[in-house]
Amino acid sequence: MKIEVCLSPSLVHLFELEGKNVVVVDILRATSCMVTGLANGIEAIIPVAEVDECRRIQETGLIAAAERDGMKVEGFDLDNSPFSYMDKKLTGQTIVVTTTNGTQAIEKSKKAAEIIIGSFLNLTAVSNLLLETKRDVLIICAGWKGHFNLEDTLFAGALISKLKSETDLDQDSALAALALYEANKKDLIGFVKKSSHVKRLAKLNITKDIEFCVTEDLYNIVPTFVEGKLIASTIETTIN
Amino acid sequence: MKIEVCLSPSLVHLFELEGKNVVVVDILRATSCMVTGLANGIEAIIPVAEVDECRRIQETGLIAAAERDGMKVEGFDLDNSPFSYMDKKLTGQTIVVTTTNGTQAIEKSKKAAEIIIGSFLNLTAVSNLLLETKRDVLIICAGWKGHFNLEDTLFAGALISKLKSETDLDQDSALAALALYEANKKDLIGFVKKSSHVKRLAKLNITKDIEFCVTEDLYNIVPTFVEGKLIASTIETTIN
Repeated sequence: MKIEVCLSPSLVHLFELEGKNVVVVDILRATSCMVTGLANGIEAIIPVAEVDECRRIQETGLIAAAERDGMKVEGFDLDNSPFSYMDKKLTGQTIVVTTTNGTQAIEKSKKAAEIIIGSFLNLTAVSNLLLETKRDVLIICAGWKGHFNLEDTLFAGALISKLKSETDLDQDSALAALALYEANKKDLIGFVKKSSHVKRLAKLNITKDIEFCVTEDLYNIVPTFVEGKLIASTIETTIN
Repeated sequence: MKIEVCLSPSLVHLFELEGKNVVVVDILRATSCMVTGLANGIEAIIPVAEVDECRRIQETGLIAAAERDGMKVEGFDLDNSPFSYMDKKLTGQTIVVTTTNGTQAIEKSKKAAEIIIGSFLNLTAVSNLLLETKRDVLIICAGWKGHFNLEDTLFAGALISKLKSETDLDQDSALAALALYEANKKDLIGFVKKSSHVKRLAKLNITKDIEFCVTEDLYNIVPTFVEGKLIASTIETTIN
């Protein structure tokens, strides 16, 4: 199993996606929300890149979440907090979502054999799915507006640390992500809180979200992208 | 002093260069060669992005170095080994150079207030120059064909470790570079040798070059870009 990391969506053009399991990660907060929502009873999530497209689908009667620059866009139903994705009124619903970084990264991943949604919240479940399917893996960090960010890279490192016995790791980004995670795993929050990007998000009163989003293995589901929607897959359904 | 790191030339468009000291780094091997050459008596180095341009300038009578994919391009005088840049026949000469990554990164840095050539070989000299001028700093890693690489990022971390008391470090790439360097500084060569990119270079029989290029502080000069040429600057001439 070959494992590579793409540190920012701005670098996706440098990688082959065909035939691979692509893990999309946007820890703060898109992929953490998707995992939380599907684990708490949301039926399916339609990820879209643009706010206009999100609004058009909202107008067909779906609940819609739109976030830009960390804040809810006016006129939408849901913000980008994982706690909002636990709302019981969402049970059984299909919702439509657009975010600053995460849904853009999904859009850029569509040539993959399988798109898998990763977060610390479902770290071991993602790792188990990858071990089962044995395809080559590309972890795409959503970053922040094209930039590298710490928290997505640390997740890449955490995932690689679970897979490393199955691979001869030699890609520079993957080696860096693993080394960063191993050097900081005892205090991930303390490390990411040094970042201007995380400080900016923390000003939006989402400190509780940030702490939640770096919690490992709260959920045992893996969202995968099937016919335009993210659904909670089990290993059995995914590898068929 | 604000310090940022651009992890690959593919990300340069995300950064402001105006008014900044931009440190260009291509440890294996362009910027290590430039430092070695200017420290060993080369008068000036004209960096150019394209092989054709390098050939045109060669035809005016200058000694020319052209490297692509780690190897010397046919018809040129010099390869891309720092040991070739110690040749006494180069003393007092102006030479023209193009490389796969390093000279491309210089080309993309031309909006900077000052372009500074960094390598482990002149680490402390670069740090002293930056401390003296006190401009904001952007370290641009030349990477490999647009990709992130370990050795340039480790140099960024090493440079930041010398400047960190002068800055409130909060950019994600800079925090990552510093953490990677601090976790691996006792065995930089062991760490970079895990990389497929470095393994590929090592197959070209440049293991001796790789070890040389991670040696700290062999030289006390800082190449800066003045009127189209890299020259060995002292702090006094640079800050005027």
